[in-house]
Amino acid sequence: MPDGSGSERFDALKPSRVAALCDGVFAIAMTILVLNITVPSPRTVPPEQLPGALRHIAPQVLVYVMSFINLGVLWVGQHNQYHFIVRADRWFLWINIGYLLLISFVPLATALLGYYPLERLALFVYGVNLLGATLVLALHWQYATAGGRLVARRLSPKVVQLAHRRIVGTAGAFFTALLLSLLVPVAGLALFLVVPFVNVLPFGVDPHLRHGPEGRDQDGG
Amino acid sequence: MPDGSGSERFDALKPSRVAALCDGVFAIAMTILVLNITVPSPRTVPPEQLPGALRHIAPQVLVYVMSFINLGVLWVGQHNQYHFIVRADRWFLWINIGYLLLISFVPLATALLGYYPLERLALFVYGVNLLGATLVLALHWQYATAGGRLVARRLSPKVVQLAHRRIVGTAGAFFTALLLSLLVPVAGLALFLVVPFVNVLPFGVDPHLRHGPEGRDQDGG
Amino acid sequence: MPDGSGSERFDALKPSRVAALCDGVFAIAMTILVLNITVPSPRTVPPEQLPGALRHIAPQVLVYVMSFINLGVLWVGQHNQYHFIVRADRWFLWINIGYLLLISFVPLATALLGYYPLERLALFVYGVNLLGATLVLALHWQYATAGGRLVARRLSPKVVQLAHRRIVGTAGAFFTALLLSLLVPVAGLALFLVVPFVNVLPFGVDPHLRHGPEGRDQDGG
Amino acid sequence: MPDGSGSERFDALKPSRVAALCDGVFAIAMTILVLNITVPSPRTVPPEQLPGALRHIAPQVLVYVMSFINLGVLWVGQHNQYHFIVRADRWFLWINIGYLLLISFVPLATALLGYYPLERLALFVYGVNLLGATLVLALHWQYATAGGRLVARRLSPKVVQLAHRRIVGTAGAFFTALLLSLLVPVAGLALFLVVPFVNVLPFGVDPHLRHGPEGRDQDGG
Repeated sequence: MPDGSGSERFDALKPSRVAALCDGVFAIAMTILVLNITVPSPRTVPPEQLPGALRHIAPQVLVYVMSFINLGVLWVGQHNQYHFIVRADRWFLWINIGYLLLISFVPLATALLGYYPLERLALFVYGVNLLGATLVLALHWQYATAGGRLVARRLSPKVVQLAHRRIVGTAGAFFTALLLSLLVPVAGLALFLVVPFVNVLPFGVDPHLRHGPEGRDQDGG
Repeated sequence: MPDGSGSERFDALKPSRVAALCDGVFAIAMTILVLNITVPSPRTVPPEQLPGALRHIAPQVLVYVMSFINLGVLWVGQHNQYHFIVRADRWFLWINIGYLLLISFVPLATALLGYYPLERLALFVYGVNLLGATLVLALHWQYATAGGRLVARRLSPKVVQLAHRRIVGTAGAFFTALLLSLLVPVAGLALFLVVPFVNVLPFGVDPHLRHGPEGRDQDGG
Repeated sequence: MPDGSGSERFDALKPSRVAALCDGVFAIAMTILVLNITVPSPRTVPPEQLPGALRHIAPQVLVYVMSFINLGVLWVGQHNQYHFIVRADRWFLWINIGYLLLISFVPLATALLGYYPLERLALFVYGVNLLGATLVLALHWQYATAGGRLVARRLSPKVVQLAHRRIVGTAGAFFTALLLSLLVPVAGLALFLVVPFVNVLPFGVDPHLRHGPEGRDQDGG
Repeated sequence: MPDGSGSERFDALKPSRVAALCDGVFAIAMTILVLNITVPSPRTVPPEQLPGALRHIAPQVLVYVMSFINLGVLWVGQHNQYHFIVRADRWFLWINIGYLLLISFVPLATALLGYYPLERLALFVYGVNLLGATLVLALHWQYATAGGRLVARRLSPKVVQLAHRRIVGTAGAFFTALLLSLLVPVAGLALFLVVPFVNVLPFGVDPHLRHGPEGRDQDGG
């Protein structure tokens, strides 16, 4: 029994396995988004009315593209974190499952917004869903890095902070879009459309990633 | 031919591959749960009735969250087992496929319960589904550990027992909820809602996982 | 350029990657089977008629279980083959994609049979689908093993033959069920229900797998 | 801090992880294609009308097979590229997500074409979708190989060019089919049906893959 200390860990889920579940849920959520777009069928739409029917579902397609990119942003965000996470524990696991719960809800919020793109309530549900996911992602990073709990020892505080700042920035943008939706729905929708594309852009921590340590001095913003 | 003993094993599925199929089925089942929630559409629900329509699907959303967490619990439960399983055989494989059959049925039972949250029959189907999955999970552990069949040699009987006890405890909770559903549906539903969250909590075997062998004396409960 | 011979292979897909796509398609096909079962909803089925509505979908549930096990058999069959396959080429890849095409069609054939469990045409479509998948699986093995094309060198002809025989046996059973369906639909359906469970049982090559080389003499049947 | 240069890379997604998301999206898109085929049900189609109902969905099945093979071609195309790609960066990641966006749209374009197989607009949407995906795949290769950005150093310019030429050839075929669709819909549909099968065939770079360096002289076309 004295040799059993290593193999007797009952709860030692490897981060890579949690990541596999995450990849699966993201891939599925991204792909089933499209199932919520109403495909016109000959039963209700005769061929000559097809152009009008497609114009009719244009908002759904737009919202679908927006959600796809947003899920992409959230996937990239989580994966970047996994790059540094080397251990997992029970609470971490459940933060992940809570994150996935919000991710898997996105297709529903997207369908709703596709149907009612300018309704305050639909924008509210959509915004709360994305904001919630972003905040859980912040918690995910916070939990993993606090006191170096689940990360590699050599991770510098600067990287921790930069990553945290980026997530908080995204959360702030979603919160603003959410508030704006309640005042001027069309402006809120426009902001929701812009946020993911801003997130695609490189950010402060990127330069010294590509160029290595020598670029470390210029990562202020 | 004398060298062929190793490479001629025809049925030697590695546990990691079975786990990959399991991850896939869990990820999909968790993500398609949401497809069963009825999204209001402008054809039947004019914008001004949207709040009422969303209140109307609230039970479906609640049941969806409950099922998501339950699937999370069952996923974690199985993955914890895989941490110790180092071999697979034909029967083990089919126990897994039986497990996945029950997992893939959860979206249907969830949809039914979402539509009829206080109907005895819907609660019964839901409860039998979850109870069945939990019992197959117990069988899975039983089969893998009996006589050390598929597990690492160094696995202590204490861990085997603690894990077994936890699964049996969950099965007992589901069984109680099932019985309660038949008597007082709303109480049964409430218990179903509580069980997954209790499962999220750490349990007896956790402390000595984090702290290593020196915590081994305190894992009585 | 003389050093480029290894890294310039443009088409060298590793079998493990093809297997990953296969696992994905199988996991999804198995999990979306359930989406084709008609869940009764309060719009059309008042609570007091729920028992009758569930009895009404019982054939769909039965066919779903049958298809799930059949997909399990086909997944196990292919994975057992991958245990020996160490290379992939272009034709092998496309045999796989053809196989997956038939696998992804199973949910449709299952839905059809669930609706019309005793119709010759529905049984015919179902049977052709499963028989086709089994024959492509035989081709898959044939192609991989002919002249040792894609398998490890040490693979004995006996294993090749035993595996081949098993697949051909399954194909024969499906073919019989298909013919029987056209004569006596209910008997054909019954045979379709039995075949997957027979496939779950161990077969000739199993004993000497568990016990190693010393069991090699008894693997005749 | 001087030792932190390696572990502080914040954006160093490994290509294998991106590939895992791609495999997931492809597997799902391929498998949910079938969900868009209208399965006849006893509510609207009495058993004796089943043959007619199946003939009625024949175009949907045909288009489904075509899309499945096309997705197979696009999957193989991307995976062949991954064989050479050893690094990933932020832009590469987003090119991938853009690619997946187009892939996940294929089920919708397929459903539309299945309903309206000879309508110019449906053929146009389908063609633009496939052409777009192919062009993004070309960009993917272009971006990864330009100046050896993300590929192994030893990759010869000849392989880069051959792969590029193949993708451009496919794009040209889709573009032709697209134009043809607008003039003679049935001819455009026929060409869409042929393209994927042509892509299944081996091409110029294949021979010297199988036979190694000595076949290098004969890979002109």
